[in-house]
Amino acid sequence: MNGDTEAVLAANRAFYEAFEARDLDAMSVVWEHTDRATCTHPGWTTLRGWGQVAASWYALFQAAQRLQFILTDERVDVAGDVAWVSLNENILGVEAGATVAAVNVFVRDDDGGPHRGEWRMVVHHASVVTDSSPTIQ
Amino acid sequence: MNGDTEAVLAANRAFYEAFEARDLDAMSVVWEHTDRATCTHPGWTTLRGWGQVAASWYALFQAAQRLQFILTDERVDVAGDVAWVSLNENILGVEAGATVAAVNVFVRDDDGGPHRGEWRMVVHHASVVTDSSPTIQ
Repeated sequence: MNGDTEAVLAANRAFYEAFEARDLDAMSVVWEHTDRATCTHPGWTTLRGWGQVAASWYALFQAAQRLQFILTDERVDVAGDVAWVSLNENILGVEAGATVAAVNVFVRDDDGGPHRGEWRMVVHHASVVTDSSPTIQ
Repeated sequence: MNGDTEAVLAANRAFYEAFEARDLDAMSVVWEHTDRATCTHPGWTTLRGWGQVAASWYALFQAAQRLQFILTDERVDVAGDVAWVSLNENILGVEAGATVAAVNVFVRDDDGGPHRGEWRMVVHHASVVTDSSPTIQ
């Protein structure tokens, strides 16, 4: 595993740690604060721009329920300054548990500031797996 | 709109045209034939590698039902040789219609062959929008 892959995996894990901890500050560090920040929670319409995305995390973190994520089948691909992670979120804390398929896209920060080189989330798209044994596998 | 954005939008449209036409050859041209090809149909587990992805299109195109896509809210972002499109697929042909939120990731072909410079799909992730008016919008 090379350095980029490790750094992307670390950014990806920071996302789920912020989600589990319901820590809006930590979630804010994970994301790029731009118009292209795009988030699709399971079953939701797509939210665009950091303002909308942040508001969704604020609302989700107000909810009573704590979730725990067991991440499986992680695959990281890096192409230049963009990387994407596909994985399964095995979620404990919802009735009978749930498996959510997700893809997370990250972009390497190139703004020349103190965070230069760090990976920021620009896309999170998650969907509940409803058919555990599709006919095509 | 610059040339990259136009080319990515064209690749994205070619994907939906192949889907509507149930044309496996056209779908094959859209996708990168690599291990990183990743496809999550609504409610499905994630399929990885062009072999699995191609098999899913083959099976879907065998189904009797023709679908028609009206694409709305397309947003294209390009970063180097990677681009992603987020959009809504408004699908006619299923009972009462459906809205599917999708993100499609493309990579610019750099293999030096005759297709050098063309954009190929590496990720398609689609999920049905079940809540048309989430509390956070």
